Amino acid sequence: MSNAFILDSGLKGFPPAAEPCTPDTIAARGWNLFRDDLPLPLAVLDAEALEHNIRWMQAFAADRGVDIAPHGKTTMSPQIFQRQLAAGAWGLTFATVFQVGVGVRAGARRIIIANQVVADADFDGIATLLAAHPDLRIWFLVDSDAQVALIEDWAQRRGRTQPLDCLMEIGVPGQRTGCRTVAQALTVARRIHGSAALRLGGIECYEGGLAHCDRAGDQQAVTAFLNGVRDIAQQCDALNLFEDESVILSAGGSAVFDVVAPALRLTLSRPVHGVLRSGCYITHDHGFYASMLHNIEAREGLDASLRPALSVWAMVQSVPEPGLALLTCGKRDISFDLSLPQPVRYAPRGATNAQPSPEGWKITALNDQHAYLHFDPSSVAPAVGDRVNLGISHPCTTFDKWHWMPQVDGAGTVVGAVTIHF
Amino acid sequence: MSNAFILDSGLKGFPPAAEPCTPDTIAARGWNLFRDDLPLPLAVLDAEALEHNIRWMQAFAADRGVDIAPHGKTTMSPQIFQRQLAAGAWGLTFATVFQVGVGVRAGARRIIIANQVVADADFDGIATLLAAHPDLRIWFLVDSDAQVALIEDWAQRRGRTQPLDCLMEIGVPGQRTGCRTVAQALTVARRIHGSAALRLGGIECYEGGLAHCDRAGDQQAVTAFLNGVRDIAQQCDALNLFEDESVILSAGGSAVFDVVAPALRLTLSRPVHGVLRSGCYITHDHGFYASMLHNIEAREGLDASLRPALSVWAMVQSVPEPGLALLTCGKRDISFDLSLPQPVRYAPRGATNAQPSPEGWKITALNDQHAYLHFDPSSVAPAVGDRVNLGISHPCTTFDKWHWMPQVDGAGTVVGAVTIHF
Repeated sequence: MSNAFILDSGLKGFPPAAEPCTPDTIAARGWNLFRDDLPLPLAVLDAEALEHNIRWMQAFAADRGVDIAPHGKTTMSPQIFQRQLAAGAWGLTFATVFQVGVGVRAGARRIIIANQVVADADFDGIATLLAAHPDLRIWFLVDSDAQVALIEDWAQRRGRTQPLDCLMEIGVPGQRTGCRTVAQALTVARRIHGSAALRLGGIECYEGGLAHCDRAGDQQAVTAFLNGVRDIAQQCDALNLFEDESVILSAGGSAVFDVVAPALRLTLSRPVHGVLRSGCYITHDHGFYASMLHNIEAREGLDASLRPALSVWAMVQSVPEPGLALLTCGKRDISFDLSLPQPVRYAPRGATNAQPSPEGWKITALNDQHAYLHFDPSSVAPAVGDRVNLGISHPCTTFDKWHWMPQVDGAGTVVGAVTIHF
Repeated sequence: MSNAFILDSGLKGFPPAAEPCTPDTIAARGWNLFRDDLPLPLAVLDAEALEHNIRWMQAFAADRGVDIAPHGKTTMSPQIFQRQLAAGAWGLTFATVFQVGVGVRAGARRIIIANQVVADADFDGIATLLAAHPDLRIWFLVDSDAQVALIEDWAQRRGRTQPLDCLMEIGVPGQRTGCRTVAQALTVARRIHGSAALRLGGIECYEGGLAHCDRAGDQQAVTAFLNGVRDIAQQCDALNLFEDESVILSAGGSAVFDVVAPALRLTLSRPVHGVLRSGCYITHDHGFYASMLHNIEAREGLDASLRPALSVWAMVQSVPEPGLALLTCGKRDISFDLSLPQPVRYAPRGATNAQPSPEGWKITALNDQHAYLHFDPSSVAPAVGDRVNLGISHPCTTFDKWHWMPQVDGAGTVVGAVTIHF
């Protein structure tokens, strides 16, 4: 991976005529967004907001008596992982064994794979990582007897005698993975307990599918679900099915982390680690998570909390008819899965700072490489060469479109960079 | 870029416990999809179908007397670019200057940027590439006086005296970029002709927004639009506004290339190169382009033409309730912008080859890392560890989710690989 830490013109967003550099040395270039030193589109991180979010979320979790294992699949950025761990994160979460490899190389030593692992190549990958790092722990999810059988088959074929760590997943009927009923869960937990290939380290769930941005309804639905999960944890404890010194009790926690955190504190016969796996808090957004956070702030009585730290700058390339401008930014550059991007700031050509976008500017469609900006032609109109800053909805599907992002200060100066490894 | 040609466990889809290799040496590993040598999800290229498509499209264009400059933004793969050029492509098309850099390093020497270029950093990038490669030609699009002024401003600040090559873009009212009327177009063409910073090499348009999978209607709408474009080319020729030895007349041609190709043959006072910029033909698909191709085959009286060459294999990770299975494949792995993926083949755990997916299997949703497969629980049900092959809709937004893809033969054996540089 070390080669990939070189930033050069082979990476989208890097000035195509500039010499290579590293994330650590990029600040010396003195590049500034508003001087057009970098080509657009460009996804940028607000250095101050990013730092704020890392500290704010860590403090929130500490205050609630839970740990965090931030979901690394949001950013897949080693430099961000290192900052999350340095700020006090208990570990990191990933979705795949490939992603775990990036996290381990970044220094993570407690990792939850919030997913079922089922492929030989992935079990081999876990075994290789564990063998190379004696202090590494990796827990993955198990939710069926069939999966246990498949793991036992792999272990037998490889002659492996050491158990792999796992968490049992509890799911929501009609939604994603995980055991649907108490009876199912206890059957699977007994099966894991009886297997030499696995060690049951705790209980996991993902509550995000129950959150629909309904302030009271979300709280009620998520609390009811988490109460069921707590009940299963208590029954497993009473049956002595947990096999480690402590018990991990983990939930997602990106959209309704205020409701989730207190539910992860539980008294069992062994110490319990409540682990929030929030991912999107790191940069927050101007769309889906912004709406969710309004509810969290209202429920918690907070005046402020997370700040949007990720946006994409694009340039007006054409204003072909009144009321329509085309921007150099498309499906390859910004998330569009939850909602379309929205103009948040604007810097006319030549301006050395940004102002709020005029009222009524709206992105109505994206092609692979274009954004359609509609505006009121009788009001402020964008011109060719103007810069438009797009707020995002869903950090995960914006990060995965870039190999690096600069961090910028309030004046648009590049003060650092991170690399991204999807 | 040479470092990026090493395949290793830092890249999604590469076996996490395997030693690195190169695309040229991967076949020696003897890896096979059905032996689970590679982790899933994995996007794979059908080696035979890919080769067929390259040859078929080249022959189609040659037969119609037009050139092709395949759109590189579909694959961003140097190995594929080299095969397209070796098969006879006149040049390559790209959407951004970053992409052009990848194409030039792969050996392309005639490049159309099918987009307006507007940023200083990008003009600097073009100038750097031209200075490094005296045999390189790059044409980009111009559609407004404002853009011409911005290029002149850049040239003046850099002290550049050599003109940059451009094509004037003609657009469709209410759609994307490009001049809307004959009068607008002639004004812009005269402005380019009068500018020392630019050289007008021809006319470009993108007709794809007029194709709605209506067999007769598409043909009528696209033909009418292209007739307007031809008329503008003739007027520019009569006014002696073209400034090169020959004139480029170029259109998109992915969805309705049969209608586009004959319209690009035109007699002017200088030789005319008709250039199709089709991108998606290279792998075709099982969705959007498959529907479009049915109409092309019907209009042309063809029994067969392009074949789907790109699909994604995923593994069943959980069957948490009757009728629902979750697959290891999500928004990070496969296109979902035009329609959701569809199961096309299926290999039960342990099977050494694939069979058609059972009737009624359907992908109903994707999360970042999961696919929801619904099935009739009274019929063939998928089991944990089974492999499902997903057909795609829109190659561009599947390629951009991978850094490499293996090429496989009909038996699932890896016979080669390509790297991908978005």
